[in-house]
Amino acid sequence: MTGREARAHIRSGGFAGPTTGMAAGFVQANLVIVPERFALDFLRFCQLNPKPCPLLGVGEPGDPALPAVGEGIDIRTDVPRYRVFRDGAFGETVEDVSAIWRDDLVTFALGCSFSFEHALVDYGLRLKHSALDRNVAMYRTSIKTVPSGPFGGPLVVSMRPFRGGDAVRAVQISTRYPMAHGAPVHLGAPQAIGIADLARPDFGDAVPVEDDEVPVFWACGVTPQAALERAGLAFAIVHDPGHMLVTDIRNEDIALL
Amino acid sequence: MTGREARAHIRSGGFAGPTTGMAAGFVQANLVIVPERFALDFLRFCQLNPKPCPLLGVGEPGDPALPAVGEGIDIRTDVPRYRVFRDGAFGETVEDVSAIWRDDLVTFALGCSFSFEHALVDYGLRLKHSALDRNVAMYRTSIKTVPSGPFGGPLVVSMRPFRGGDAVRAVQISTRYPMAHGAPVHLGAPQAIGIADLARPDFGDAVPVEDDEVPVFWACGVTPQAALERAGLAFAIVHDPGHMLVTDIRNEDIALL
Repeated sequence: MTGREARAHIRSGGFAGPTTGMAAGFVQANLVIVPERFALDFLRFCQLNPKPCPLLGVGEPGDPALPAVGEGIDIRTDVPRYRVFRDGAFGETVEDVSAIWRDDLVTFALGCSFSFEHALVDYGLRLKHSALDRNVAMYRTSIKTVPSGPFGGPLVVSMRPFRGGDAVRAVQISTRYPMAHGAPVHLGAPQAIGIADLARPDFGDAVPVEDDEVPVFWACGVTPQAALERAGLAFAIVHDPGHMLVTDIRNEDIALL
Repeated sequence: MTGREARAHIRSGGFAGPTTGMAAGFVQANLVIVPERFALDFLRFCQLNPKPCPLLGVGEPGDPALPAVGEGIDIRTDVPRYRVFRDGAFGETVEDVSAIWRDDLVTFALGCSFSFEHALVDYGLRLKHSALDRNVAMYRTSIKTVPSGPFGGPLVVSMRPFRGGDAVRAVQISTRYPMAHGAPVHLGAPQAIGIADLARPDFGDAVPVEDDEVPVFWACGVTPQAALERAGLAFAIVHDPGHMLVTDIRNEDIALL
């Protein structure tokens, strides 16, 4: 299945689940849609914080197309599930945002960890959260994003445990994917980045870290969602976690040499 | 000072100390000289174990030149200090091996960690052992080299502690230097590679690892010296640790993109 075929399937109403493993080899994207009034600030936020917010594409105000990442995209219907943000807080999840679309909405597609995870698995590394059938563990850290307008707040990271030599390979492989959060921001001592207890993630599921494993931390696409909350916008739309925009871009297209 | 100038200075008898920081930017090399009878086995040992034994140059039997790594080298006089290996054990150290040179000796120059250390320091990372004015800590591990003829035995590693984000950068930077041991072989739990106590290195000096640091382990040029001991050769010559062959090769010449 190509990215385009995946989107057609989703648009037809045939699929509303998580996109993990869908259209393997095609880049999936985090989605943030904000009113034009905040679009410049948010765009600058992304460019100031490229590790959590690697910018794949930005739409025109009011235009549901996003040609930078895929042909024929209608962003109102092509994501399996959305979260609507109202009056400073996340509200309902819906499968279609056509009814609430507005002429002033600007769409942002941001790279997602699935691209480097795909490369890690291709290489032969084991993703512990996948093996345990859990979501990846995510944490708010003491690392601050660089603010822009109302957007700012903590860097959110995802954590994957690896044994030593595998941790080295995970650094090398993810370094090749700067548009999918790139190299880890940290490894080892969680306290050093303000994480008090690995067993209590702020998002996702806890994944145990054994004595012979090192926790490896990557910047995470939940960071912009935390920034939205901090900004307290009256209206915005994001994807529901795990329910991503599948693009026409191939993972290898965004890989460094 | 260029590599050639450094060698001329050493050859003239003007310098017999450690070469750390000498001819900055030029590759320094580990030296192993064995009788021709063992040269093929040793060459194959290097090619089977490229991380501890990255082969920069091999001489002709009996020839003290080594044009692959430097113009006008006389390997009998151009290294500040040598260790002579006799009857299976390391013996005396000398500043010149002209008097004990033989027509059947074959010279091997192997890349050394100074090249990636130079790149780490250039980037702005702090080498703790340098800051403490100590030798790097080195350990025999439970990782076995691939044997060739009489050569084999444990992989020896050097350890440098880094904080999380710096550990990530250290992996990335050293990955660019496969001819200088390349990426780490391990990071985190020392027990996983058979190191019982970081405070008791097998070679060099202990360097403390704090709670917010991760020990990072690289394959080490002492590995072939351990292999020589295991092989129990009647005669061989190596450099005295820290007293390296300074070559004409620039660090950037051996760096990947």
